[in-house]
Amino acid sequence: MGGVEAGEDTKDSKTEPKGNRGISFLDFIMRIFAIVGTLGSAIAMGKTNDTLPSFTEFIKFKAEYKDLPTFTFFVVANGIVSAYLAVSLVLSILHIVMSGARITRVVLIFFDTVMMAFLTSGASAAAAIVYLAHKGNERANWIAICQQYNSFCDRASGSLVGSFIGVLVFVLLIILSALALSRN
Amino acid sequence: MGGVEAGEDTKDSKTEPKGNRGISFLDFIMRIFAIVGTLGSAIAMGKTNDTLPSFTEFIKFKAEYKDLPTFTFFVVANGIVSAYLAVSLVLSILHIVMSGARITRVVLIFFDTVMMAFLTSGASAAAAIVYLAHKGNERANWIAICQQYNSFCDRASGSLVGSFIGVLVFVLLIILSALALSRN
Repeated sequence: MGGVEAGEDTKDSKTEPKGNRGISFLDFIMRIFAIVGTLGSAIAMGKTNDTLPSFTEFIKFKAEYKDLPTFTFFVVANGIVSAYLAVSLVLSILHIVMSGARITRVVLIFFDTVMMAFLTSGASAAAAIVYLAHKGNERANWIAICQQYNSFCDRASGSLVGSFIGVLVFVLLIILSALALSRN
Repeated sequence: MGGVEAGEDTKDSKTEPKGNRGISFLDFIMRIFAIVGTLGSAIAMGKTNDTLPSFTEFIKFKAEYKDLPTFTFFVVANGIVSAYLAVSLVLSILHIVMSGARITRVVLIFFDTVMMAFLTSGASAAAAIVYLAHKGNERANWIAICQQYNSFCDRASGSLVGSFIGVLVFVLLIILSALALSRN
């Protein structure tokens, strides 16, 4: 199968080398962006903590991302996705060199789609909890903890941004790969 | 562009009609599955409510999906995605007839990817709240409301299933479209 693919590559890269090479180069650049976004999100949320001034010396109220399982999931998801993106750069470079590749592009679309679902899942779950922390919910008697843990909430909210940028980049990456496949 | 595409279609459907027609048929069947899953989720969550027996006649504690904005988002997301899936059946049928189509497949991959992100977002946000309703969170002083609103929680949890099946189907749909593109 590899032999057949290599044969196709040579043929295709002769007929349409420039268009797909540009797409592959854009793919590479956008992956770098997504790495920065997701890794930044993981680190920002991972370092999120806030110590509340307490009246007694012995009891310290400290808020950490580990207190909320959803935030732990968010950090893990962003970490895994940024690691995947770093590895995927290899295939991205391969596509710049061999711009007519088909099978590896399908493989990349598959992993990109799965990782996008994973990242979206982590980001949205964290967003739901951040929203709750800000607004609270009267009917469920859940109080808005952001009034107490202000800096904790600000960091947690901010760390969502990189993650959602990552999701947006993944949508673009999948379209670019599909476009490159359709031109081969 | 439409003329060029139609020309390609005729050529391609002559060279590789059977493989892609099978893929397109599978695409159609899976979309039906996803419609059932997402529409079922929207209806199940939309009808979720639970009245708590109260000591006084005047105060009724009633839990509804509308009490939690995240659940409202879940119902809206599932409704929109199932409507999109119903419309997308037209393109899916077109691909069974014209199995060599390229541009419409790229268009379909684009909308499928966006809708998958939307559905994953709704399902994960709702899952984060359902998890919180079941387990509560000691550090944030959020109580596990499921001990009170038992039937509400069961229905809300159950309605997540169809939505996550929908996400899984979307991943498969995108791969199938990519595979069909790579064989054209």
